[in-house]
Amino acid sequence: MNGIVHGGGGAPGARGSAPGAAAMVPPKTAGAAADKAADFANYFCTYAFLYHQKEMLSDRVRMDAYYTAIFRNARHFVGKTVLDVGTGSGILAIWSAQAGARKVYAVEATNMSQHAKKLVAANGFHDVVEVIEGSIEDISLPEQVDIIISEWMGYFLLRESMFDSVIIARDRWLKPTGIMYPSHARMWLAPIKTRLGDQRVQEYQNAMADWGCFTQKTSDYYGVDMGILTTSYFEEQKKYCLQTSLWNSLYPSQVIGTPALVKEIDCLKATLKDVASVFSPFKMPVTSQETRLCGFAGWFDVHFKGSPHDLVDHEIELTTAPRDDETTHWGQQVCTNSLK
Amino acid sequence: MNGIVHGGGGAPGARGSAPGAAAMVPPKTAGAAADKAADFANYFCTYAFLYHQKEMLSDRVRMDAYYTAIFRNARHFVGKTVLDVGTGSGILAIWSAQAGARKVYAVEATNMSQHAKKLVAANGFHDVVEVIEGSIEDISLPEQVDIIISEWMGYFLLRESMFDSVIIARDRWLKPTGIMYPSHARMWLAPIKTRLGDQRVQEYQNAMADWGCFTQKTSDYYGVDMGILTTSYFEEQKKYCLQTSLWNSLYPSQVIGTPALVKEIDCLKATLKDVASVFSPFKMPVTSQETRLCGFAGWFDVHFKGSPHDLVDHEIELTTAPRDDETTHWGQQVCTNSLK
Repeated sequence: MNGIVHGGGGAPGARGSAPGAAAMVPPKTAGAAADKAADFANYFCTYAFLYHQKEMLSDRVRMDAYYTAIFRNARHFVGKTVLDVGTGSGILAIWSAQAGARKVYAVEATNMSQHAKKLVAANGFHDVVEVIEGSIEDISLPEQVDIIISEWMGYFLLRESMFDSVIIARDRWLKPTGIMYPSHARMWLAPIKTRLGDQRVQEYQNAMADWGCFTQKTSDYYGVDMGILTTSYFEEQKKYCLQTSLWNSLYPSQVIGTPALVKEIDCLKATLKDVASVFSPFKMPVTSQETRLCGFAGWFDVHFKGSPHDLVDHEIELTTAPRDDETTHWGQQVCTNSLK
Repeated sequence: MNGIVHGGGGAPGARGSAPGAAAMVPPKTAGAAADKAADFANYFCTYAFLYHQKEMLSDRVRMDAYYTAIFRNARHFVGKTVLDVGTGSGILAIWSAQAGARKVYAVEATNMSQHAKKLVAANGFHDVVEVIEGSIEDISLPEQVDIIISEWMGYFLLRESMFDSVIIARDRWLKPTGIMYPSHARMWLAPIKTRLGDQRVQEYQNAMADWGCFTQKTSDYYGVDMGILTTSYFEEQKKYCLQTSLWNSLYPSQVIGTPALVKEIDCLKATLKDVASVFSPFKMPVTSQETRLCGFAGWFDVHFKGSPHDLVDHEIELTTAPRDDETTHWGQQVCTNSLK
């Protein structure tokens, strides 16, 4: 099938936050400080919990990819300066130091930075890794760096819009000869089969039936006619039940056609405008026989290729495509259709 | 048993928001606009959803109490002016108009106010009820009012701190002869038996055991020693698993002693300082034979008594105490202990 993917990139909400929980924008009168505060309340706060950091640190696919990318390409790190954007617990910064970096600046917006400082010191890199608490957009470094490393990917790559911060860091702090870790990212969309679609349609139908009972009772017992809100309520439920994506961890057998590449990002060159939205024509042939198109799954991969002038010795891929053996905490994002 | 209850009142988080979800305060540099934006993101946004309003409108105990309080005391409303603080869908405002109010100002901070306007018009009270979108602290009314009505109670009464807004509204907009609906509120604490305590202790123990495996693997596979974070992780888990209250809907048989009254509020006189914290000595005898003290439950009741100079004709109580027949969406707040 042919189609167009069109989506905004700027959706806040940290990984693991309640599915469907809408993060609301501040009232119109709010300024920059207010935007920041809303961002903090909506998003950053989750990352201040060790429990959440542990979940990401327990993701073997994620950990293996970054670990291998660094240590199999230690040549890039030896004697160099590194900036870790959103260091969290400090793991990438510590690995960079272990790989031989001369100096690592590990920036973290939440007070997780305090734990990162302890972890750095306990692992013997107090003299190499400098943990800085603050937003990357606000802090100052004494020098530009050879490498920017960051684990910035959200659900379906761009949820959280953290890559915006990486771009800003790159434009300000990466040397002209510098390298991005990862260097590339791609977004994929594929046709799938899943029971989720039917479940969601059922949820929606239940909500509609229940609304009928509710308006009847409210009128009978309390003398207020809620009928005028029916359309709005159905719209709200339709949006929630049928028109939001949800987290799922799919099996490869659920992918019933050829995934389409809908976005490619060169982390060295991408601009804020490039990643502000995803708009892409695509073809997505359904190849399974006797199947049923229930919806679409979105996922991403990133690659550690180095820069055009200084390639890695060993190219590493981190993919979140459906797999039988290993899953990631990212899962895939699933959009179900409501056609029977 | 004797004890002291000490708690802060200012905990944001709308009813129904994810249990245990911590609302974080904005960074130190934020000002008033930032606080507002964080409040909005943390709290107000939930109330902008019809689904959430419907949940509260479907609470029969809640609805019955307010409906009865208004219509059995219509004398207070006939020809009078009313202010509904936090009108939501507009239900209390519409009832006030149906009871004979001359004018009702229905203030709502979220864009739920748009639905309230439609509901008011569809039920024929466009000329009586004026819906105003904004924070009660910011808006202006053309006159003072005879009655302030509001459904402001959060979990264990004071979660959400919405009563602060009611106090501010009262001090600014209620006539000296005015009446508060409800007029009084009380907080209760009781000793209980519950399986929740054991479950939470098990959760905590699982978390500790899991941490041990996690640190071992992170050291073996990734060469980083996470041991320095153990104390902080356990503290965080202890706080989450053992030291936060949780929502539950108890049976009366689970209350194993005499509830203690820990707070009394006269809604006509209470100051912001009065409700900023709850600090109360209490006695709470365990009266059940052969039982086990597993924790404490907190709940509240409110009363519609009128004012000292203008009592209601029919005093109404809305209680959230454990009951066999009916429950409320408030449930009770349960603190479990970790003693075996």
